[in-house]
Amino acid sequence: MSTLSNQASTRSGRTVISVDAMGGDLGPAAVVAGISMSATVNRDIAFILHGPREELERLVAKRRNLAGRCDIRDAQGVVSMTDKPSHIMRHGKNTSMWSALDSVRDGEATVAVSCGNTGALMALSMVRLRKLPGVNRPAIAVLWPSRNPQGFNVMLDVGADVRADEHDLLQYALMGASYARNGLDLKNPRVGLLNVGTEENKGRAELKLAHELIGSVAGRGNFDYVGFVEGGDIPGDVCDVIVTDGFTGNVALKTGEGTAKLIGDLLKEAFSYTPLSRLASLLALTSLRRLKHRIDPRRVNGGVFLGLNGTVVKSHGSADATGVSAAVKLAFTLAQSGFCEKLAARVASATALTQDSQTQQKDTQ
Amino acid sequence: MSTLSNQASTRSGRTVISVDAMGGDLGPAAVVAGISMSATVNRDIAFILHGPREELERLVAKRRNLAGRCDIRDAQGVVSMTDKPSHIMRHGKNTSMWSALDSVRDGEATVAVSCGNTGALMALSMVRLRKLPGVNRPAIAVLWPSRNPQGFNVMLDVGADVRADEHDLLQYALMGASYARNGLDLKNPRVGLLNVGTEENKGRAELKLAHELIGSVAGRGNFDYVGFVEGGDIPGDVCDVIVTDGFTGNVALKTGEGTAKLIGDLLKEAFSYTPLSRLASLLALTSLRRLKHRIDPRRVNGGVFLGLNGTVVKSHGSADATGVSAAVKLAFTLAQSGFCEKLAARVASATALTQDSQTQQKDTQ
Repeated sequence: MSTLSNQASTRSGRTVISVDAMGGDLGPAAVVAGISMSATVNRDIAFILHGPREELERLVAKRRNLAGRCDIRDAQGVVSMTDKPSHIMRHGKNTSMWSALDSVRDGEATVAVSCGNTGALMALSMVRLRKLPGVNRPAIAVLWPSRNPQGFNVMLDVGADVRADEHDLLQYALMGASYARNGLDLKNPRVGLLNVGTEENKGRAELKLAHELIGSVAGRGNFDYVGFVEGGDIPGDVCDVIVTDGFTGNVALKTGEGTAKLIGDLLKEAFSYTPLSRLASLLALTSLRRLKHRIDPRRVNGGVFLGLNGTVVKSHGSADATGVSAAVKLAFTLAQSGFCEKLAARVASATALTQDSQTQQKDTQ
Repeated sequence: MSTLSNQASTRSGRTVISVDAMGGDLGPAAVVAGISMSATVNRDIAFILHGPREELERLVAKRRNLAGRCDIRDAQGVVSMTDKPSHIMRHGKNTSMWSALDSVRDGEATVAVSCGNTGALMALSMVRLRKLPGVNRPAIAVLWPSRNPQGFNVMLDVGADVRADEHDLLQYALMGASYARNGLDLKNPRVGLLNVGTEENKGRAELKLAHELIGSVAGRGNFDYVGFVEGGDIPGDVCDVIVTDGFTGNVALKTGEGTAKLIGDLLKEAFSYTPLSRLASLLALTSLRRLKHRIDPRRVNGGVFLGLNGTVVKSHGSADATGVSAAVKLAFTLAQSGFCEKLAARVASATALTQDSQTQQKDTQ
């Protein structure tokens, strides 16, 4: 039997992405427009699209470049943003989200993309795809605009689980480094552990333990460990991967987004204040566009669920065609690099390593 | 014997602020320039300035408006940014920081201002001023640029302690509301509890308990409780006071600052890209200055230590004269409103209330 990634890329040599067409704020039209954008720029991509067949057939028929590259799977149910994850886990079998994950479960694709309800998507991913052997808590990783040459840093967990002990944080370090290697093309990513200071004696107990654990595995894990980092380093250049628990990560993510949004709005306000400032804003249009492009959240649209048998890219609920296309691009990059298998191998070998060293410690005690 | 605030404002009817002249990055010259700025705009303010007498006398003599309004207390020792708090607690008796706090301890002033080492300042404040009766963990509160009409929100704790249980969070709510009433002049501040979602079942166990506790006290505490809020609400307008533990608050604060700094730098870069964009930036100068003023951290320079017998305003280490003057203004506002006594009364009555309701619960069980 061939591996998942081989199975998933047999469709005339194309890499297949499983896409949930429903559940986003802008509906299936934005999703179909997004995958069509991706299909135009990328000849090696094909799709399995999940949702109500009639509606999807009508939308796909309008996009000539999707002809022969987009299978449709009928699923009449839609997960709404207000649905409770527990409800969807019990009663969501007919939904497009469930169907999209099952394409990964069945090996038709290695990566799924959805704009739907994050909580429900994580809950369904856990039951349909199951956790990778050796992973205790899967995590959600995001890309964050930064001062690094690659333009973005990876941060995880941003909200899969509000708790994380030292072993979870070690796994986040391994998974985050793997993601940076495959998603950002960094050979030797630098990993930092988020804390309230960089001194070794700072922070909570589990952070001190994680600090030692991650440091002991770094060399063999093909990443550099830079030690503790602070909130200001998330958009900084001292590391490429920021490891934290899902509570802190979620607050940091939303604080950063909220602050950027506030500054953007105040900037607009400042530029519309007087006729002269309005003229200046016209002249500055390209400069402002350049800035906007640099920090445009749509360019890095997609939290990635890590630690499952298969990868799930969670696009913003409000994603438009550009946003969906960015999420699809990320999904394609990860699928083509065989990311999921590499991640699984990395976690398995690190688990063996830490178990070895624990056994050795016991032996010598 | 008169109360602290009466004693502290007897100097020809002026409100006296105790100021640590040393320990900031720019040295005592910036501090003296800052208090001189404050003295010019505010006739009702006087100072006790702590540091090496000769150096301070020379600096103060140059500022005519400080004549007769600035006592100097000799203290030869300086707390540096790298000094360990534990070391300063044992050996810091001759420092300007210690001396500045002792002026509050002795009732000569109700508020102290320092640009020095935050950790050392908090540790010294705990031993010299002691915690207010009923307060378990003092907190550091900051003002954060926001969409609210007052322009700023209060967030606490941003790093006094990495832990906080539900009772600590309740005290933060009370102290934060009191600060918003006295520092931002809000009659009925709206308090939110920081979490990863606004649904009641979200987050950690202590947050669910704090949610009930704060809700039960809100009406009698003269504040509105809006429930759980998210990171995006810190610069938002759904509440005026954001309550969280010192770990999360510190990460959020530094993430927000780092994000704002990155955007500011990218903005500068964008505007210096082409001759046209440089011209535009010239035309936009007033607009950009207006924006800068709106979110200028120097305008709200000062974390405030709450929950002690006396108030301590911690100015940024890098504060220039404008920054020091802003911290002094905040200190003056708090001193004049009798903030510390009001806060003490509020905490005492809330402690009584929660104890009452706990006793009642036991009685009826």
